[in-house]
Amino acid sequence: MATDQPVIKVAILGASGYTAAELIRLLLRHPNAEIVAMTTHQDAEKNLSEVHPALTGRLGLRLERLAADELIGRGVQCAFACLPHGKSMVALPHLLDRGLRAVDLSADYRLTDPNLYAQWYGESHSDLAHLAQAVYGLPELYGEELPTATLVANPGCYPQGAILGLAPLLAGNLIDPTSIIIDSKSGVTGAGRTPTTATHFPECNESIGAYSVGRHRHTPEIEQALTAIAGTSVEVLFTPHLVPMDRGILSTIYVTSSRRPAQDKLLELYRDFYHDTPFVRVVEHLPATKHTLYTNFVDVTVRIVRNRIIVFAALDNLVRGASGAAVQNFNRMYGFEETRALM
Amino acid sequence: MATDQPVIKVAILGASGYTAAELIRLLLRHPNAEIVAMTTHQDAEKNLSEVHPALTGRLGLRLERLAADELIGRGVQCAFACLPHGKSMVALPHLLDRGLRAVDLSADYRLTDPNLYAQWYGESHSDLAHLAQAVYGLPELYGEELPTATLVANPGCYPQGAILGLAPLLAGNLIDPTSIIIDSKSGVTGAGRTPTTATHFPECNESIGAYSVGRHRHTPEIEQALTAIAGTSVEVLFTPHLVPMDRGILSTIYVTSSRRPAQDKLLELYRDFYHDTPFVRVVEHLPATKHTLYTNFVDVTVRIVRNRIIVFAALDNLVRGASGAAVQNFNRMYGFEETRALM
Amino acid sequence: MATDQPVIKVAILGASGYTAAELIRLLLRHPNAEIVAMTTHQDAEKNLSEVHPALTGRLGLRLERLAADELIGRGVQCAFACLPHGKSMVALPHLLDRGLRAVDLSADYRLTDPNLYAQWYGESHSDLAHLAQAVYGLPELYGEELPTATLVANPGCYPQGAILGLAPLLAGNLIDPTSIIIDSKSGVTGAGRTPTTATHFPECNESIGAYSVGRHRHTPEIEQALTAIAGTSVEVLFTPHLVPMDRGILSTIYVTSSRRPAQDKLLELYRDFYHDTPFVRVVEHLPATKHTLYTNFVDVTVRIVRNRIIVFAALDNLVRGASGAAVQNFNRMYGFEETRALM
Amino acid sequence: MATDQPVIKVAILGASGYTAAELIRLLLRHPNAEIVAMTTHQDAEKNLSEVHPALTGRLGLRLERLAADELIGRGVQCAFACLPHGKSMVALPHLLDRGLRAVDLSADYRLTDPNLYAQWYGESHSDLAHLAQAVYGLPELYGEELPTATLVANPGCYPQGAILGLAPLLAGNLIDPTSIIIDSKSGVTGAGRTPTTATHFPECNESIGAYSVGRHRHTPEIEQALTAIAGTSVEVLFTPHLVPMDRGILSTIYVTSSRRPAQDKLLELYRDFYHDTPFVRVVEHLPATKHTLYTNFVDVTVRIVRNRIIVFAALDNLVRGASGAAVQNFNRMYGFEETRALM
Repeated sequence: MATDQPVIKVAILGASGYTAAELIRLLLRHPNAEIVAMTTHQDAEKNLSEVHPALTGRLGLRLERLAADELIGRGVQCAFACLPHGKSMVALPHLLDRGLRAVDLSADYRLTDPNLYAQWYGESHSDLAHLAQAVYGLPELYGEELPTATLVANPGCYPQGAILGLAPLLAGNLIDPTSIIIDSKSGVTGAGRTPTTATHFPECNESIGAYSVGRHRHTPEIEQALTAIAGTSVEVLFTPHLVPMDRGILSTIYVTSSRRPAQDKLLELYRDFYHDTPFVRVVEHLPATKHTLYTNFVDVTVRIVRNRIIVFAALDNLVRGASGAAVQNFNRMYGFEETRALM
Repeated sequence: MATDQPVIKVAILGASGYTAAELIRLLLRHPNAEIVAMTTHQDAEKNLSEVHPALTGRLGLRLERLAADELIGRGVQCAFACLPHGKSMVALPHLLDRGLRAVDLSADYRLTDPNLYAQWYGESHSDLAHLAQAVYGLPELYGEELPTATLVANPGCYPQGAILGLAPLLAGNLIDPTSIIIDSKSGVTGAGRTPTTATHFPECNESIGAYSVGRHRHTPEIEQALTAIAGTSVEVLFTPHLVPMDRGILSTIYVTSSRRPAQDKLLELYRDFYHDTPFVRVVEHLPATKHTLYTNFVDVTVRIVRNRIIVFAALDNLVRGASGAAVQNFNRMYGFEETRALM
Repeated sequence: MATDQPVIKVAILGASGYTAAELIRLLLRHPNAEIVAMTTHQDAEKNLSEVHPALTGRLGLRLERLAADELIGRGVQCAFACLPHGKSMVALPHLLDRGLRAVDLSADYRLTDPNLYAQWYGESHSDLAHLAQAVYGLPELYGEELPTATLVANPGCYPQGAILGLAPLLAGNLIDPTSIIIDSKSGVTGAGRTPTTATHFPECNESIGAYSVGRHRHTPEIEQALTAIAGTSVEVLFTPHLVPMDRGILSTIYVTSSRRPAQDKLLELYRDFYHDTPFVRVVEHLPATKHTLYTNFVDVTVRIVRNRIIVFAALDNLVRGASGAAVQNFNRMYGFEETRALM
Repeated sequence: MATDQPVIKVAILGASGYTAAELIRLLLRHPNAEIVAMTTHQDAEKNLSEVHPALTGRLGLRLERLAADELIGRGVQCAFACLPHGKSMVALPHLLDRGLRAVDLSADYRLTDPNLYAQWYGESHSDLAHLAQAVYGLPELYGEELPTATLVANPGCYPQGAILGLAPLLAGNLIDPTSIIIDSKSGVTGAGRTPTTATHFPECNESIGAYSVGRHRHTPEIEQALTAIAGTSVEVLFTPHLVPMDRGILSTIYVTSSRRPAQDKLLELYRDFYHDTPFVRVVEHLPATKHTLYTNFVDVTVRIVRNRIIVFAALDNLVRGASGAAVQNFNRMYGFEETRALM
């Protein structure tokens, strides 16, 4: 087991949130990663156990306010940015310019068109140079670009299920690219760790509702990826819902097809498409998010009902939808086994 | 308050389940209803508190195995059937033939076409005579038939949100009747009170998944009602999901329109359509099921996104989706104020 | 039904929180109460539906910032204060001095000893005059003082279960008054509506933990009431826990007894003690909070295990633990049937 | 990392339940364990993914009905019994007599006194020979017996928190051994995977209640262990509660002490006692079960309130309370690092 492989010194930027906690948990299990720094805006000088009690005793490091030089001084080779959007594009350039590699879990480097970024995120992109080099970190689709990538834009939680669920159909030119409706249901960790009325327990518990209808920021990210796969412009109707559970995203995706494929042929298509990938499981049963809880799997199936195709994709938004994908990207970047620390 | 109005003697047939408990709770608050009998298959001779601990001390009646004659001997005037489908059409004919009126909460009298019943429920309909007389008990649409109805088929929980959500659009001939996709999310009481693996707490808690895709029995019921409203054949794609909460159904309904209506015009249309109804609330915010919890309200709104119309309809499946609607029907049947016992 | 009884004009002070919403819901069902004003600090000029979407369409009043004179100008006869502690003793004196009656749901008038108030709430009591007149509003114990009370201090949610659970034992001098351990488990609405880290869904969902160990402010309230019942100084060990559910408190109470009573005798004692009360249900089964959900009941039972007595008391913290008790007090104050609007 | 260490061939007996699924998940991560057989009563010839969809694609073995000879024929060296109580003592003797070692997750070999077993489990113990040799598998207390143990009785979920929480106090002779009250709160997986009314989602969700008061079978197991530690007879009052969450046990333990220790001294005592153990975390904050979710940790703290000591112990009932402890025992039995596959 890889005893002659290197150990990469990594830093977690923005270590206070849920994706950071999940990432630390996974990296502590990784034989080729050593966390040497954790930065924070609001929790400086706190112990990890104060910020994340679940990680008590796991790592003898404090959260710190650290400048780029200090991170470099510690020998950091790879930075994982768990920062809010708008912050990564401020923090990462200094590190990238000094030779570090980075996996950015924010949205800052996902949209290749900076105008789209400005339109959906409400501010101009301030790091066009690195934006142009960023690789969209969906390993099943862009795996070959990862070994040489300097900056990896880790995909959003909703986009992962939507893109992986639709890729075989669009790549096979099987569906009408203007017919796509993505009805997604997410657990509450997807909303982050900052308390709000919407995520206050008695408001969202025992309830389901839609939010950000027609204006969720993952929409252009999904369309960008699907357009690239289809080779033609794809527009989607994306409706996210908040479900009273901690983790998990189920996307129920409706598309129309003029080709009238048979269901077993479709499943075969999916199995072929994901044949060499360890984390996309093409299943015959209807996937529930619970089947993927605390794993890096995306469970996908497909049904034909009354001339429409319905795709179901389930995943854990904190593992596969964020930190697990980040580790998967890290493994690909450094040539480690793709599943390391993730099974 | 109605002191000169009659008190109707009612029986609850099949008093062991969730809809029965909810109905008893509501009727105990009703000044014009007196529960004089509760029948049961499995819990005969038990006290109400043994079967429904929440109702301890509320009603000094036992659950009993009672024949039609015994119910008539007690002076029952109106029977509420909370029986499984297939059982109502066996139990109710004897009572209806002896002059009782009935509200049936099962599916037995909802589909006017007995072939459709046979096809979806797997057995022939055995009471065609009463089926022909049954009124579909959606008071907002069929309210005028209720005062003279002998037998009211209380609508299914999913159909109520779907039908009330789509009625203004179809009545106004505003949408393509073949474009309808209904993505519904339901709490677990919708699955009834019998323990199963799917509803075992650790299986469905912290999870969301679809079920009965393409074959849920509420599909023909929805189509029958929508076809009647549209005046043309309507087909829907209906996908139910199980959400980890007790009560509540949210239906997210996607339709296409060639007419390109404006959103404010649509809301106005909805407000006009439901102007005189006390229980359909046309709201501007996105409704969450929690807003309707333990009430008889259906909260509806509509959004236009990229040339598609999305309708959101939220309700409590045990109140509005079952027992509340039954009481609303009862009120209409006997001329009581529509909201009695329901506010 | 009470057609000749008066209708009392009431105001809700502090209408933004959960207890206010519950109170409004109950009072809208009350034939002898008319809500004529709702005050607020943070939500002035908002419609009720903006603050409490569940109450959409129920009441055509806005939330307002209103001075005492304005409330009096509207003819308010009774004020329900749903204010944070420390605010009621500022707002109520002006109203009480002008002849209004009040039910205070805050803690301000519960502790008769102002030193105890200062010690546990961290500030001096500023309204000793009315404090001296306040009646502790636990109707089962102080019901006879309520018809003449001007100011009723509505009890805390935890104290109600603890006091009602222990009263028969202490009144009967059956237990060691220094042996009492109260292990309580509460739903999250008990923590109020202001978002905090502790009540952020992903923090408290799927988890149980204790909080405020040894320093919860309901401790002196419980001891004051139990001491009055016992006629001797009572000290309790009170440990509250946060349970991932919206509503409900279960108190598991451990006491020792030198008298060795038999369990059936104890149940008989409890039944006798609560014989004339409509809301305390002495049950034989182990009560779960769900049996009391959305009701004003307190379900109590008692078990003897290895020479210790265990009392179980379950209630809905928003109804019985707050707003339901307030309406019960209101009914007693004005001579209405005790159960009105509460069944 | 142990490349020269052996790989032990293991079998899972009774592979259909939750503890089996958790055990398989952990063992698949263990470099020194190879699952070569999974037996079942009800799911014979099913694929693992049919029984545990979460494990889809993880292991290419079917569940089978296998006799002892067949297990031995496969080279099984160690059997993990995830069987109901009463079944392990039938299945294991054949394997033990043929030289296998075993970790039994049922209750069959936990109570050293067969009379106690008969009394609490309602049947005579049928394997006294192996019962006499069984080691109680709580590694923090009996770790030194494990390397030579043939049969390890994996402790119950409740006992682990209770025993580890009380051991330092009893070993230090600091408390009154007759004063112990254990108020425990458990998630629903603790009740197993068979659907029942009590564990039907709409029955236990949004509710908390006690069960098996005074007669839970973990009582004698706790007392046996505590008596051994104290060197004197210990009796406990143990009250379990069902909490609406999947996993987690919090035990709130009340004891009296004549010694009046200081809180910081107590924490120091705990830290010393568990100094060399990797899985008991003595914390200063109040532990919530969520801090231990999906881990093998037991988080313990202690508070002094009004001359009583309160101990809080939190753990994940499926990991630490069952399958994680089993792997920890396995590691000790075979000389692997204690934390292997568990971090």
